[in-house]
Amino acid sequence: MRMTSERPAVAIIMGSQSDWETMKNAADTLDALDVDYEARIISAHRTPDRLVSFARGARDEGFKVIIAGAGGAAHLPGMTAAMTPLPVFGVPVQSKALSGQDSLLSIVQMPAGIPVGTLAIGRAGAVNAALLAAAVLALGDEDLADRLDEWRADQSASVAEYPMDEG
Amino acid sequence: MRMTSERPAVAIIMGSQSDWETMKNAADTLDALDVDYEARIISAHRTPDRLVSFARGARDEGFKVIIAGAGGAAHLPGMTAAMTPLPVFGVPVQSKALSGQDSLLSIVQMPAGIPVGTLAIGRAGAVNAALLAAAVLALGDEDLADRLDEWRADQSASVAEYPMDEG
Amino acid sequence: MRMTSERPAVAIIMGSQSDWETMKNAADTLDALDVDYEARIISAHRTPDRLVSFARGARDEGFKVIIAGAGGAAHLPGMTAAMTPLPVFGVPVQSKALSGQDSLLSIVQMPAGIPVGTLAIGRAGAVNAALLAAAVLALGDEDLADRLDEWRADQSASVAEYPMDEG
Amino acid sequence: MRMTSERPAVAIIMGSQSDWETMKNAADTLDALDVDYEARIISAHRTPDRLVSFARGARDEGFKVIIAGAGGAAHLPGMTAAMTPLPVFGVPVQSKALSGQDSLLSIVQMPAGIPVGTLAIGRAGAVNAALLAAAVLALGDEDLADRLDEWRADQSASVAEYPMDEG
Amino acid sequence: MRMTSERPAVAIIMGSQSDWETMKNAADTLDALDVDYEARIISAHRTPDRLVSFARGARDEGFKVIIAGAGGAAHLPGMTAAMTPLPVFGVPVQSKALSGQDSLLSIVQMPAGIPVGTLAIGRAGAVNAALLAAAVLALGDEDLADRLDEWRADQSASVAEYPMDEG
Amino acid sequence: MRMTSERPAVAIIMGSQSDWETMKNAADTLDALDVDYEARIISAHRTPDRLVSFARGARDEGFKVIIAGAGGAAHLPGMTAAMTPLPVFGVPVQSKALSGQDSLLSIVQMPAGIPVGTLAIGRAGAVNAALLAAAVLALGDEDLADRLDEWRADQSASVAEYPMDEG
Amino acid sequence: MRMTSERPAVAIIMGSQSDWETMKNAADTLDALDVDYEARIISAHRTPDRLVSFARGARDEGFKVIIAGAGGAAHLPGMTAAMTPLPVFGVPVQSKALSGQDSLLSIVQMPAGIPVGTLAIGRAGAVNAALLAAAVLALGDEDLADRLDEWRADQSASVAEYPMDEG
Amino acid sequence: MRMTSERPAVAIIMGSQSDWETMKNAADTLDALDVDYEARIISAHRTPDRLVSFARGARDEGFKVIIAGAGGAAHLPGMTAAMTPLPVFGVPVQSKALSGQDSLLSIVQMPAGIPVGTLAIGRAGAVNAALLAAAVLALGDEDLADRLDEWRADQSASVAEYPMDEG
Repeated sequence: MRMTSERPAVAIIMGSQSDWETMKNAADTLDALDVDYEARIISAHRTPDRLVSFARGARDEGFKVIIAGAGGAAHLPGMTAAMTPLPVFGVPVQSKALSGQDSLLSIVQMPAGIPVGTLAIGRAGAVNAALLAAAVLALGDEDLADRLDEWRADQSASVAEYPMDEG
Repeated sequence: MRMTSERPAVAIIMGSQSDWETMKNAADTLDALDVDYEARIISAHRTPDRLVSFARGARDEGFKVIIAGAGGAAHLPGMTAAMTPLPVFGVPVQSKALSGQDSLLSIVQMPAGIPVGTLAIGRAGAVNAALLAAAVLALGDEDLADRLDEWRADQSASVAEYPMDEG
Repeated sequence: MRMTSERPAVAIIMGSQSDWETMKNAADTLDALDVDYEARIISAHRTPDRLVSFARGARDEGFKVIIAGAGGAAHLPGMTAAMTPLPVFGVPVQSKALSGQDSLLSIVQMPAGIPVGTLAIGRAGAVNAALLAAAVLALGDEDLADRLDEWRADQSASVAEYPMDEG
Repeated sequence: MRMTSERPAVAIIMGSQSDWETMKNAADTLDALDVDYEARIISAHRTPDRLVSFARGARDEGFKVIIAGAGGAAHLPGMTAAMTPLPVFGVPVQSKALSGQDSLLSIVQMPAGIPVGTLAIGRAGAVNAALLAAAVLALGDEDLADRLDEWRADQSASVAEYPMDEG
Repeated sequence: MRMTSERPAVAIIMGSQSDWETMKNAADTLDALDVDYEARIISAHRTPDRLVSFARGARDEGFKVIIAGAGGAAHLPGMTAAMTPLPVFGVPVQSKALSGQDSLLSIVQMPAGIPVGTLAIGRAGAVNAALLAAAVLALGDEDLADRLDEWRADQSASVAEYPMDEG
Repeated sequence: MRMTSERPAVAIIMGSQSDWETMKNAADTLDALDVDYEARIISAHRTPDRLVSFARGARDEGFKVIIAGAGGAAHLPGMTAAMTPLPVFGVPVQSKALSGQDSLLSIVQMPAGIPVGTLAIGRAGAVNAALLAAAVLALGDEDLADRLDEWRADQSASVAEYPMDEG
Repeated sequence: MRMTSERPAVAIIMGSQSDWETMKNAADTLDALDVDYEARIISAHRTPDRLVSFARGARDEGFKVIIAGAGGAAHLPGMTAAMTPLPVFGVPVQSKALSGQDSLLSIVQMPAGIPVGTLAIGRAGAVNAALLAAAVLALGDEDLADRLDEWRADQSASVAEYPMDEG
Repeated sequence: MRMTSERPAVAIIMGSQSDWETMKNAADTLDALDVDYEARIISAHRTPDRLVSFARGARDEGFKVIIAGAGGAAHLPGMTAAMTPLPVFGVPVQSKALSGQDSLLSIVQMPAGIPVGTLAIGRAGAVNAALLAAAVLALGDEDLADRLDEWRADQSASVAEYPMDEG
């Protein structure tokens, strides 16, 4: 995980250590795009003070985009969005009983007024939250825009033409 | 709506004015049981400061039980529970697109550590949140226990033996 | 499991032995809070007499709060609530085919008049039922209130600031 | 509604007056087949004593089949089945928020040991509960078997060959 | 599996060999109650002729109750019911992708006119289909009624009072 | 509705008169493409003989494609497919309680061996079943292929560039 | 609807005229924030050429953020995201049969590699897509950041303290 | 996998290599029916150019039927259908979090105008897509019609009469 002395552009926050297995995919994707980030555990329910402190101060600390992952009654993305004007992208972590259906609805069904841009349940959502954050940052960073174009071109090129039997 | 000078035992909070159509059923039920309450609008997303202030201070203000109603990505009950040791009972308000399935999962699927006692979607849930709050208060208030017993006996007695064609 | 000669404040009931794997999390949590309880198997369907006898007599026996866990067409919490004025908290046990969606709806969607405060599906719900029961009892027990505050403070303090790769 | 001095073969029970709009379709169907029945309101939650008394005594009173309709956390069919050896057929009444999905799962997902033969949500389910009750009674009543055959033949004959524009 | 020279009272049919793992629980339960049955594979889709032949002839062959299990787009119970006046009880077999939700809806949501008494998804449903079939047959067979009463009494007696830690 | 003396290429079958409101959209679409069809009511449950007779004879009568619409436990498309080698396209009719979710799963979740090409729930599905039938017939009919190309070009051309406020 | 001679920063695209009733809420919100936009109808299915042309050219034309609304099998947001590096925010339009559950899953469940930041179903989602687009643009536009702060402060201030009975 | 020098009648396309585990069941079924096909990976999202090129050219290249499998927000079948007049049959690949419910709705809920004939989730859907493609081709190929009849007869004959305990 990359951590520089000046505040990175992206904060990756998550509700618990167990969410890291999913959210590190966002971190890895930002690494691949050479985008700085900081990853923190902030439980909306168990550490509400930490949530308020982080969300209220995020813009002043220099963050530009926030990626928030949580599962079950996932309140972290929406409550963060309630307390910062920065764009917040939410990742529904796959839950045990309901496979992330609860996480998804708890994150995406925000009322008019406070948006959370929500990605897919689980690993794909974490990767895509990073890509979306990069696309936002690339609007003001041509070098990043180029790196993102290249990343996408590589991705396209890596898709094989014909399926292969494995094993 | 009953509002006395000293703090009532029950707070009824809800995310928006539109939730009042549902939550006033909780108020009416508390009225019927002669239990004092205060009803307030607290939007977890649009007024997070009000939420923090209310939830952090609720016990000291003298509240004993909190009833919280919200719809969609319903974060009010869970975030209140995160910031008060008082019992919180959640009412999923019926939402437009998903009929309250989102409200229900956002309220009930709380992670281990911060409980919200969740009632049914909509009007029945609001009535029952009031009855559950009364049952809790009745543990330390024999007069209320008697009134609740009477209320329930009346309810049982009011069920007709045979169905009637209406109209 | 703690069992004292005088009736404890909390009854933990469940529909079958197989529910104990989930419900012992409620017992463990009450143990951690030093709250007495009694755990019993009461099948609403296979032992309806036991259900009637228990629920009708629970208040007189000295119980103050009932935690009821069941899965599938989970009738135990609601039927208990129908026959006692005590607060009843329901825990939907995760079912095999439908992952507890049936348990959740069977418990939470009670009609107006008979409330069941419902917690999350599975282990988290069992833990939280115990915490909610403790919060209710703490309204009349300052020592317990202190222990609960401490438990929650410990919980907050135990959340790490940064995620760690495990392996 | 038919009510004779000797106990009819079929009991139609339902959780509330509002369920009668659905359940009268069962009554009408039994009328059409000339099968005696008695319709009663028995709320599992609001009148549990009535439930116990009815279910425990149903066989001795002479009933042979029980049709039970309820909505939401629908416990009436399953709790009746828990207290009588008679065949119980359940009708999930369409609920407001969840359109009867809660009613259906609460009725059909009974644990091994106590069966409820469940029909479709709403009106079709009520009609079919009556037809199924008649099919059961027809095993020991050749006249009824003939009437049921005739009813089904009429039904088949009433299906038009070609669709018609209406209006 | 019991197979006598004269036609047994119960037919257990299922859509494929793979359903037998579920449906043998119905067979075992009928064995325990000393009720004769015949088990057959009849695929509504792959062997429609066999379906028509069986269903059309079932009453004349002496069957009294039909238990039909199927998964996915489960048409066997409903199509059998369409071609016989005998009571048909349906068992939704748990499917791979949708865990039997498709099976359940395909069986239970029959239109008015052709009933299928539907049991729970999977093993519990198979056991209960047998118990329901026995309850129907017991209406005309006092010995069976006695055996069923005894079976249920044994079941009640077998429920332990207190949960035990296993391991 | 077009009905010629020689058998048309497409059969539109549906479970009841009430399905015609949906299925006439298939008929209208075939009319627009100048494709002959015959529309019939065939209830899998209430007229199983008609179903067997139709499905068994469909190829010999000259039909080439079958469009089948049904709602709830929708067995018509799958049972037709079980008894004819012709391509069968299924239209899930929107049901009252479950909005066609039951219809969809009952039609689409066919087991390996008997396919039903399933379209969307309701009107869109009926239109598209007609278009898919036309696409299939167009493989052997160049004039129809031209008409279908034209129809699609017209459809594309009819999409306005900018939205307009209505009212 | 605002349309200036130079390309605005935001494109609002939607699958059909009927989606405008929902999507105009995005336009109104951008108007309130004084953010320029262009609204266009682009059907992924009926006008795929228009989709390719728009999405491929969007960055070069000067757009910075794309808001895409669609219903049912909603492919417009994801296919646009596949052909542009710009951030794409998706709005699931409420569909007739499935109330937007199909729209939501079709938009949010994108595979790793191509992100769509998804908002709530219906009107709230359209408002929030506009707010999220504004938050993104505000990262490089301090005046807009101030307007957005003001808009949010006004929103917070507009929430009444106490509910009022309406009538 | 069969690949001849002249274009085969059927194209099997899929969104990624990982879909091949499902889609090879379509290939195997076509092999069993001696129908030529070509299998290709075409990601609607990662290789949109390949998609456009393939779909636009498919008819001219000689393909007659297209089978398209994809999972999650599965846009491949619908977008292919938007750009070719050929019949397209869609196979929802089982997804990790939502078990293919997202795949199914993303494929089947196409708007009026662009049809995708959708099969079951997973392996059964892949087999059936091949059978449906064969049924379509058999309309203009009597030899194939005979082979398909034989395949179906074999399938019927392979269904055992009685279930067997395994193991």
